[in-house]
Amino acid sequence: MNNRLTFLGTSSATPTRVRFHSGQYLVIGRDHILLDCGEGTQNRMLEFGINFQKIRYIFISHLHGDHILGLPGLLNTMSLNGRQKELFIYGPSGLKEILQMHFSSGSAYLTYEIHYNELKAGQKIELESLVCNVFEALHRIPCFSFKIEELRHTLKLNVGVCEKLGIDISQYSKIKEVADGIDKSGRVIPNQELTIPIEPTGSYAYVTDTLFLSELAMKMAPVSVLYHEATYLSSLIDRAEKTFHSTAEQAAEFAKLCGANRLILGHFSARYDDLEEHLREAKGIFADTILAVEGQTIQLF
Amino acid sequence: MNNRLTFLGTSSATPTRVRFHSGQYLVIGRDHILLDCGEGTQNRMLEFGINFQKIRYIFISHLHGDHILGLPGLLNTMSLNGRQKELFIYGPSGLKEILQMHFSSGSAYLTYEIHYNELKAGQKIELESLVCNVFEALHRIPCFSFKIEELRHTLKLNVGVCEKLGIDISQYSKIKEVADGIDKSGRVIPNQELTIPIEPTGSYAYVTDTLFLSELAMKMAPVSVLYHEATYLSSLIDRAEKTFHSTAEQAAEFAKLCGANRLILGHFSARYDDLEEHLREAKGIFADTILAVEGQTIQLF
Repeated sequence: MNNRLTFLGTSSATPTRVRFHSGQYLVIGRDHILLDCGEGTQNRMLEFGINFQKIRYIFISHLHGDHILGLPGLLNTMSLNGRQKELFIYGPSGLKEILQMHFSSGSAYLTYEIHYNELKAGQKIELESLVCNVFEALHRIPCFSFKIEELRHTLKLNVGVCEKLGIDISQYSKIKEVADGIDKSGRVIPNQELTIPIEPTGSYAYVTDTLFLSELAMKMAPVSVLYHEATYLSSLIDRAEKTFHSTAEQAAEFAKLCGANRLILGHFSARYDDLEEHLREAKGIFADTILAVEGQTIQLF
Repeated sequence: MNNRLTFLGTSSATPTRVRFHSGQYLVIGRDHILLDCGEGTQNRMLEFGINFQKIRYIFISHLHGDHILGLPGLLNTMSLNGRQKELFIYGPSGLKEILQMHFSSGSAYLTYEIHYNELKAGQKIELESLVCNVFEALHRIPCFSFKIEELRHTLKLNVGVCEKLGIDISQYSKIKEVADGIDKSGRVIPNQELTIPIEPTGSYAYVTDTLFLSELAMKMAPVSVLYHEATYLSSLIDRAEKTFHSTAEQAAEFAKLCGANRLILGHFSARYDDLEEHLREAKGIFADTILAVEGQTIQLF
């Protein structure tokens, strides 16, 4: 599976016997990404047989402990296991200082370089196989949602232009992999002139720790697969509003508004042992809904 | 079991599929203590059915991530579960600042009070059912070892003095529970005059993240039960010295030197899947040795 998502933690503020704090391992094409990193995320990845050295990008939605407390330990383990590859961390302002304080208090030296990038709403992060659009959620502290769009791995050739410019057919496969072309006279033709712009093939939206925001759904549309927090059932909507969280029903409303094909519910309050009622509530509004289950991997699109 | 120890995490710097970072849950008489709090300690306690709201004291040996990264999350979960009881944290200088930075970055408000106590070598911490003596270990950063001695729950009556002062026999049971006495003339006799000083009944030494220190063993002696780190086998003694850790053989030497009755090995390097060789190596020097196994609870004395 070239596009896949593994659930590492699905609990909200407090963990349960079977649910850890937030974490998702996302693979889109050649990009391996960790979405949030609650306490125990590295333990979950070990348990589920995920090689976390493959992760090159870490996106952190906000600075609440249940979304970041696994990060210092994971970064340290990567180093102790001899990582050389650089790592890119995208997170809210202040994350770098938290991590650096842990490194300095433990006199830790990392074997690899970390590039910190401060998230801002409206930002577009372009990686090898995807583009991530950053949105503002509405939580107790600054919090971001992500819409991640897959890019095709090879470009589409503009055959008409290639023929007109006399590009030899033997160059076509390299041009599709982003090489420039050479015409009969030996002139270099930039790749962009010979190919058709890359189009997304599918998108994954990660929306957690937020009040229900219809305007966010509209901004994100269209979405292929939506992960939306469903901390509470709608019977506790007052509590959801007070704590800046959402209900399963609202997650389903959001899915409808952003035109999603599929909805995944997660970030469940520890008060719920059984999550069937979350599923039932959401399905009443949006049929193609599933529950995030730790250790399960799904194909995205 | 009134005196018991549960192993929550037994791995050294990097966790494994089955071993988490350091943590022990210790119950001595009426005192419930957490010794170190690596990442995932709260998850382990949930898994093993430990009610962590009973913990009143947390002792932290040093500020390396594998001994503290579970602490911000645990403290937060205690609060989210409505804890009112105050908590006492004993740790190295700097711990309070690390925790407060997490609380402030997450805008967290705790429902209970934390009393921070900065550890110093030579310190004696007196709790309800125990006395903890604090020693200096030798690691890359300041690190402490603990010798925890149980105190009897009831005092021993000095019957001779009671009879001489005319204390009525009906008062004896209350005096053994620290009440003062009243003589025939109605005069209050302080409890200390009527009882014999409390003697320790057994002791537990917690020695981790340190080079082998014979002088520490001598200072700690005598010890009933010793937990000593055994990060490496003796074949890697050079690595142990370079990283300020110990071998299974050295742990056994330490046990002999401090006159322990029993030795528990822990803090194992992730390179070892099978720990039988650790056990064999230590038993060659000190027969009454066991391995710390996560989820197991043992009676101490």
